[in-house]
Amino acid sequence: MTDDPRVGDLGEGQILQAILARLGESRAEVGPGDDAAVLATPDGAVVATVDTLVHGPDFRLAWSSAYDLGWKSAAVNLADIAAMGARPTALLVALAMPDDTRLSFVTGLADGLRDACDSLAPGCVVEGGDLTVSDTLTIAVTALGVLGGRPAVLRSGARPGDVVAVAGDLGAAGRGLALLFARFRSDDGTPVPVDADGLDRGERRDLDAQLRPEPPVRAGERAASGGATALMDVSDGLVLDATRLADASGVTLAIDSSSLGGDPASALSGGEDHALLATFPSSRALPDGFRAIGAVVERMAEAVLVDGHTHEGRGGWDPYSDWDAARG
Amino acid sequence: MTDDPRVGDLGEGQILQAILARLGESRAEVGPGDDAAVLATPDGAVVATVDTLVHGPDFRLAWSSAYDLGWKSAAVNLADIAAMGARPTALLVALAMPDDTRLSFVTGLADGLRDACDSLAPGCVVEGGDLTVSDTLTIAVTALGVLGGRPAVLRSGARPGDVVAVAGDLGAAGRGLALLFARFRSDDGTPVPVDADGLDRGERRDLDAQLRPEPPVRAGERAASGGATALMDVSDGLVLDATRLADASGVTLAIDSSSLGGDPASALSGGEDHALLATFPSSRALPDGFRAIGAVVERMAEAVLVDGHTHEGRGGWDPYSDWDAARG
Repeated sequence: MTDDPRVGDLGEGQILQAILARLGESRAEVGPGDDAAVLATPDGAVVATVDTLVHGPDFRLAWSSAYDLGWKSAAVNLADIAAMGARPTALLVALAMPDDTRLSFVTGLADGLRDACDSLAPGCVVEGGDLTVSDTLTIAVTALGVLGGRPAVLRSGARPGDVVAVAGDLGAAGRGLALLFARFRSDDGTPVPVDADGLDRGERRDLDAQLRPEPPVRAGERAASGGATALMDVSDGLVLDATRLADASGVTLAIDSSSLGGDPASALSGGEDHALLATFPSSRALPDGFRAIGAVVERMAEAVLVDGHTHEGRGGWDPYSDWDAARG
Repeated sequence: MTDDPRVGDLGEGQILQAILARLGESRAEVGPGDDAAVLATPDGAVVATVDTLVHGPDFRLAWSSAYDLGWKSAAVNLADIAAMGARPTALLVALAMPDDTRLSFVTGLADGLRDACDSLAPGCVVEGGDLTVSDTLTIAVTALGVLGGRPAVLRSGARPGDVVAVAGDLGAAGRGLALLFARFRSDDGTPVPVDADGLDRGERRDLDAQLRPEPPVRAGERAASGGATALMDVSDGLVLDATRLADASGVTLAIDSSSLGGDPASALSGGEDHALLATFPSSRALPDGFRAIGAVVERMAEAVLVDGHTHEGRGGWDPYSDWDAARG
């Protein structure tokens, strides 16, 4: 199809041009086209993070469209910037793809990147990147952000007496992944395209949370200005990430499962939620979008207690010990 | 070998710990361990770039050690920061690797990253990153830098009458790649390990330039403070990159091949040099490390002239149209 060429039949310049046409206008001092981007950091600090989506362990092309992948690769990085109490300002996108990738795939990915930024972090734009050939489709996104004159909110500041709170959904993305594995594979385990017709509203929501997540990016800055003592992204399951926050702060987090909605098991151990976990002094009103799920107490043997007990369920997701290619 | 476990048999935390032990001490306001790094940008601007090395198109494990790969993945990104007239301050490293990768490979890579920073850009440290499983070993490095109060030096500022100058080697890295393809493949084209015993001193130097490049990173800041009107990294061959600078500036670059050393053909079209190409007002003395190779003239039909003529040789390297997996 000459209408939709393979990237291997195009020059790097042509591919770049097609991508740049899809992205919003640069807001940087120096945007795409030079050796590097130059971004304003008015308060003398920049927040920076990188996260990679890899074909196989992180996504399947039967389940995720190019648009979904662009969206998700932006969203998960925007969430990490938010988790410092910062506002995302720019993405750099390193795209490595097989040379039989269609140009429409690349432009779909660019559309997803742009729309995720516009929707979740208005003002944030793709300001640079890199194109490479690879046997494995890989999207590494670097996100940069600014703090607005405030200090970053770390994982280590939670104090006994603080309220534990979250913004964003817990559990849906993990349920969505389980749904994909349970319902959208052939008999031999191969992923097959999603037919949403047979899904009820809750299942569709779970699938959306997995494939096109909407982390509460703006709640990061609200947490910082609302006095958060600690803040982090919940990406590997609430219990595991709460343990990390508790360990960094030298406290114990006591979580009340009745505050976790109708499916507390998924909320506790789901993974890929990209919710924000925060602690606030009990004297402060919770910022918009946050809800209380527990309290910070003096450090005990356990870093996290659920309803006063050790959590016995699955703790969360480790990409090295948990991923099994044979699963499909 | 339990002495050298596969990363697939370790948890993410164990791999991270082994990497962090190899890297220099963080110099960031917030270094590795939180959701994102926070870096100081004293003059209110940050320079940011990303470049990816992919197993296959960008390197072969028969030819490059883990240390070489760490070194090169840092070096090529440090060069892009230098090419803005900036000083590199931090790297973020997104590492995607097969789960049968040995831990010693990961630590070797970390050693190479650290030593390249220490040698080429003292003060620059790996301040964050990401680990993922992938069928294809992929190293995406984001480099960040600061401008020291000066404006960035773009590709677009060259003016007729300026001197064209370069810092760093031109041609050796391309010759080194040709040497690998010519001498270190088996009969069926498979790369075989390099035996340096049969190489003369010049060939060893070429190989080093290809596998462990030493771009003149500190010359970037010297160019900026020395009045450079335009500056860029030469990564795809001098003629191709000079064309880009000429087009961005709306001028023609007239290059004198007698200034290009003993192998002008390689210097003009080599690729992966990571030299710095700059233009300076003729009234200024060239900063340390730069040598004149020509002059900027009013724009003509050709963007680049070599000894007054159109360059007829190979122009440079395009990762999409030039890469052929079947080559070996």
